[in-house]
Amino acid sequence: MAKLETGLLTPLGYRAAAVRCGVKSVADKLDLALILSDAPAVAAGAFTTNRFRAASVQLDQKRLKSKGLRGIVVNAGNANACTGERGLRDAEAMAEAAALACGARKDSFLVASTGIIGHPLPMDKILTGIKDASGRLSSELRAGHETSYAIMTTDTKPKETCAVIKLPGGGKAAIGGICKGSGMIAPKMATMLCFLLTDVKMERALLQEALSRTVEKTFNCVTVDGDSSTNDTALLMSNGAAPDAEIASRGKRYDAFCEGLYETCSTLAKKLAQDGEGATKFVEVNVTGAPTEADAKKAARAIANSPLVKCAIHGGDPNWGRIICAAGYSGALFPTRDVVLHIGRVCVFRNEMPTKDAAKAAAEMKKKEVVINLSLGKGPGNAIMWTCDFSAEYVAINALYHT
Amino acid sequence: MAKLETGLLTPLGYRAAAVRCGVKSVADKLDLALILSDAPAVAAGAFTTNRFRAASVQLDQKRLKSKGLRGIVVNAGNANACTGERGLRDAEAMAEAAALACGARKDSFLVASTGIIGHPLPMDKILTGIKDASGRLSSELRAGHETSYAIMTTDTKPKETCAVIKLPGGGKAAIGGICKGSGMIAPKMATMLCFLLTDVKMERALLQEALSRTVEKTFNCVTVDGDSSTNDTALLMSNGAAPDAEIASRGKRYDAFCEGLYETCSTLAKKLAQDGEGATKFVEVNVTGAPTEADAKKAARAIANSPLVKCAIHGGDPNWGRIICAAGYSGALFPTRDVVLHIGRVCVFRNEMPTKDAAKAAAEMKKKEVVINLSLGKGPGNAIMWTCDFSAEYVAINALYHT
Repeated sequence: MAKLETGLLTPLGYRAAAVRCGVKSVADKLDLALILSDAPAVAAGAFTTNRFRAASVQLDQKRLKSKGLRGIVVNAGNANACTGERGLRDAEAMAEAAALACGARKDSFLVASTGIIGHPLPMDKILTGIKDASGRLSSELRAGHETSYAIMTTDTKPKETCAVIKLPGGGKAAIGGICKGSGMIAPKMATMLCFLLTDVKMERALLQEALSRTVEKTFNCVTVDGDSSTNDTALLMSNGAAPDAEIASRGKRYDAFCEGLYETCSTLAKKLAQDGEGATKFVEVNVTGAPTEADAKKAARAIANSPLVKCAIHGGDPNWGRIICAAGYSGALFPTRDVVLHIGRVCVFRNEMPTKDAAKAAAEMKKKEVVINLSLGKGPGNAIMWTCDFSAEYVAINALYHT
Repeated sequence: MAKLETGLLTPLGYRAAAVRCGVKSVADKLDLALILSDAPAVAAGAFTTNRFRAASVQLDQKRLKSKGLRGIVVNAGNANACTGERGLRDAEAMAEAAALACGARKDSFLVASTGIIGHPLPMDKILTGIKDASGRLSSELRAGHETSYAIMTTDTKPKETCAVIKLPGGGKAAIGGICKGSGMIAPKMATMLCFLLTDVKMERALLQEALSRTVEKTFNCVTVDGDSSTNDTALLMSNGAAPDAEIASRGKRYDAFCEGLYETCSTLAKKLAQDGEGATKFVEVNVTGAPTEADAKKAARAIANSPLVKCAIHGGDPNWGRIICAAGYSGALFPTRDVVLHIGRVCVFRNEMPTKDAAKAAAEMKKKEVVINLSLGKGPGNAIMWTCDFSAEYVAINALYHT
């Protein structure tokens, strides 16, 4: 592994460990991790809005408001979703075993799972893995980086980042983060797990507000395939371990923290889109000038989710008609005569017809990063979506995932 | 061509002709057709809800209510959409040329186009084709069948059907239909063109009511990729040529007609899904027991549009978790504890967890026709969707369509 400058464990007072316990069927893949705060911490969370919530999500939602949280246990390879009462008991047992192995109070751990739906967790492997991991906890950056591997499923790359924040008025803090997600990625969270650690000292309510705002502007702007899963979870722990890094209320220090959190989450969110299943390209869709933000979001989402648009981008084909068409059926309201579409810097559509430059967009569509700028008029509504292209590889990955 | 028993031209008093005029770039493909009623007729229509409407759609919507309509001119290979003022003039000129070539009043023709977006119609080719076709009009079934070929774009098969109706109280009538559509197929109409001819005598308002009701239950239940286009058009002409086949008002005769229309449209709609771009399988999604019909539709649509579900069906993989997950994020409201999922005849999910039989669903998923039955509870809301699987071939077709 390359030497890391910063990462998940840059914030003070955290340790982590990742091990292989055998939940993933492929040999040599890490599949279980522990994250531990040395001191009691508070946590904020954002979860799937799917009506079917995984056992881990149900447990975390109940436990999130308790004080004195100490850590997170996570496995990949099995989602523990649609597993009924047994799933809830297993999630509970997994969290308890992790807490006790780390010498913490038995109800002080949160839990997360990702992988196949509808299979009971192999608890013997999980419990062995927890014991193993608890003996390997380390505050080295390497341990956080290994954790970013342990949460991967169909991801091809680990996703880790860190923001270091200078707080106005004194004090320095860090926000480290890792996430996973590749398929079942859609707005309203993704089959995404995201773990964020910070060493600021902050009240839980304020921490939750910061996370909720930021998730809306980052992870909820990512779509790979429009499917949003049963397990989506973002957790942000705050342990107050950095000296002089208390954020007592809204204000400049809080704003600086939110900026750092946005930097962390937007970096991770873009990594999700870049690593979409079968993705060969990254796509940013900017919609501006809509009558309302809701209209802008509808249009951006329809474009980013359109299989026809995503196939055209895959083929490097300047088929701007599909983009215009997706905006048109999105449900967004706008006068068609005001619509202007740019692909990269090339204006391809204006006055309800293609421009003379439309053919020049081919070069823009062939780039590894494609930017679509759609102006719907002079309204105040703007929205952004990040996605990827749609390849035959996506189909290959998903036609055979289960068996 | 195989001998046809019935088809588009089974209803009395209609003729058709299909020719190649060179709009499609591939040699030897028919790409322009005329449909003519010998006597003045009335017509009903259903159109795209996309904010960008093709020139042909705008013209038809204006002209639909006139009496004394005589025919339809249609081309494939160029959608005449997003073509500005010029496009509107071209659509007008195309309709007028067709009417005059058939010896009809110049504003008595409707028009339809399908194909690439944003290119002006090659009017010289179109006008030559219209002249050519007007000399070949025939009432033979063969001519209607050829017309079903002339409207194809990425379709792999022509789609034609006919219902013969015995009217209660005497009289016999027929409804013949053809349609096209393969990609950009989604609820709220499709890149679909559908032409329906009947020889009953009926007031326009009643005819429109019958068509609107039927489209909602048939074509609007089809999705291939969730994209709905700028050109979607279904037209139903009624010319009163059948003896004793007047339908003066709602009642038994009207109901019999509506049944025939449903038979025609549902047959064509299923053919659309079966011929979805890259499709290897046909999928029917039935949702029952939802609190409202709107909830049932949301769930059915989310399942039918989910790339993950469609990839699983392509792979013949009993990944029922993706079906449950799609229902969960669809926005439909339902208590998860009441949900029961069958794939074919196999119950795979009940009591919030998989059944012991879940593995047996593999055989059902490997069938050419996959039926998904999802019960959300004991509510009155039901919905059905028809779709196809998602293959690497879909991506191949759509990555390179434009150039």
